[in-house]
Amino acid sequence: MVRGKFITFEGGEGAGKTTQIKRLAEKLSAAGLQVTTTREPGGSPGAEQIRALLVNGEAERWSATTEALLHFAARRDHLEKTVIPALDAGHWVLCDRFIDSTMAYQGYGHELGRDIIESLQAIVVDDIFPDLTVIMDIDPEEGLGRAGSRAGGEDRYESMDLAFHQRLREGFLDIAKRAPERCALVPARDSIEALESRILDLLRNRLELDLT
Amino acid sequence: MVRGKFITFEGGEGAGKTTQIKRLAEKLSAAGLQVTTTREPGGSPGAEQIRALLVNGEAERWSATTEALLHFAARRDHLEKTVIPALDAGHWVLCDRFIDSTMAYQGYGHELGRDIIESLQAIVVDDIFPDLTVIMDIDPEEGLGRAGSRAGGEDRYESMDLAFHQRLREGFLDIAKRAPERCALVPARDSIEALESRILDLLRNRLELDLT
Repeated sequence: MVRGKFITFEGGEGAGKTTQIKRLAEKLSAAGLQVTTTREPGGSPGAEQIRALLVNGEAERWSATTEALLHFAARRDHLEKTVIPALDAGHWVLCDRFIDSTMAYQGYGHELGRDIIESLQAIVVDDIFPDLTVIMDIDPEEGLGRAGSRAGGEDRYESMDLAFHQRLREGFLDIAKRAPERCALVPARDSIEALESRILDLLRNRLELDLT
Repeated sequence: MVRGKFITFEGGEGAGKTTQIKRLAEKLSAAGLQVTTTREPGGSPGAEQIRALLVNGEAERWSATTEALLHFAARRDHLEKTVIPALDAGHWVLCDRFIDSTMAYQGYGHELGRDIIESLQAIVVDDIFPDLTVIMDIDPEEGLGRAGSRAGGEDRYESMDLAFHQRLREGFLDIAKRAPERCALVPARDSIEALESRILDLLRNRLELDLT
């Protein structure tokens, strides 16, 4: 059994990750690959329960440190119960948010800094690093406009102020710059089709995937 | 404002911590001190929600690492929202379980080891260490018998096997030996009155409390 590839999608609110993951999953399935699509926080029954604590309620509900710990608790459960078994079974795993979101949101957005996030990462993630991370870059005002036009509910992060979302964007840009071999930055303002084509090129070039 | 003292109570299931905390709180209040009694996991609204994920459900529900992360997330919220404000306001804080329970249950009981717990402790607890930790030692079979005779509910840890509870006890003994200046080991088989008297002596001798 050839181990599958682990591809993560990152970016601020309203960057269009969900749409691109859906399109890529269809493309990979059509090419005969087994695909698991999942998300963080969540992606396993336990992690979804932790997610409910994170995405609902008041913006000030948790401090940045508590929030980071909850994200890593959910992540550990998600890795053990969903991601690792799927990769071991040969599936390509497409994940909506992963470690870089915790670094961007808590480390940069909430200004907790990189050290605490990196320490938690070392404890929790071990050697399960993505083979490719697509960082979808969007201007926060535009992204929040898109996200705000979606159906309501899980809006705790969207309710944080614009300065938070600007630090978040800077965080993602910095993350992409620090890990260029893993991360690819794509401008989320492009059309859905142009983005899809760009992402397929990344898989061809970086993961040596033979897609028609 | 003189900062209050932080006293934690540790031990396996059925060691009698709750009874001793209640008695000590009454004694300290009668002596004119302000007292906050609290517990972990829990002790603040957010931490109580995390507690619900930890103490209910199947024994195998979470891995040891996920469980440790959830305990530290709850702990951070509890420290920020309850313990630190109470100490700053001059209260004596009596807490049912704290860091040593995570070390004993996850580090020793689930055999996660000391390193991960110590790393998390460094991130989460910072300099809020107990002034005194009373470790109530009990034979696991006897303790589980006592705990099992209580009203039902929150029994996830009690449902783990005897070998787990034996490792747990060894863990508490080791913790007491490693930090003798902070921890005091008391034999929980003594009568309630004898234990109370012993704990009051600890406060007199170690915290220089003038109790009649």
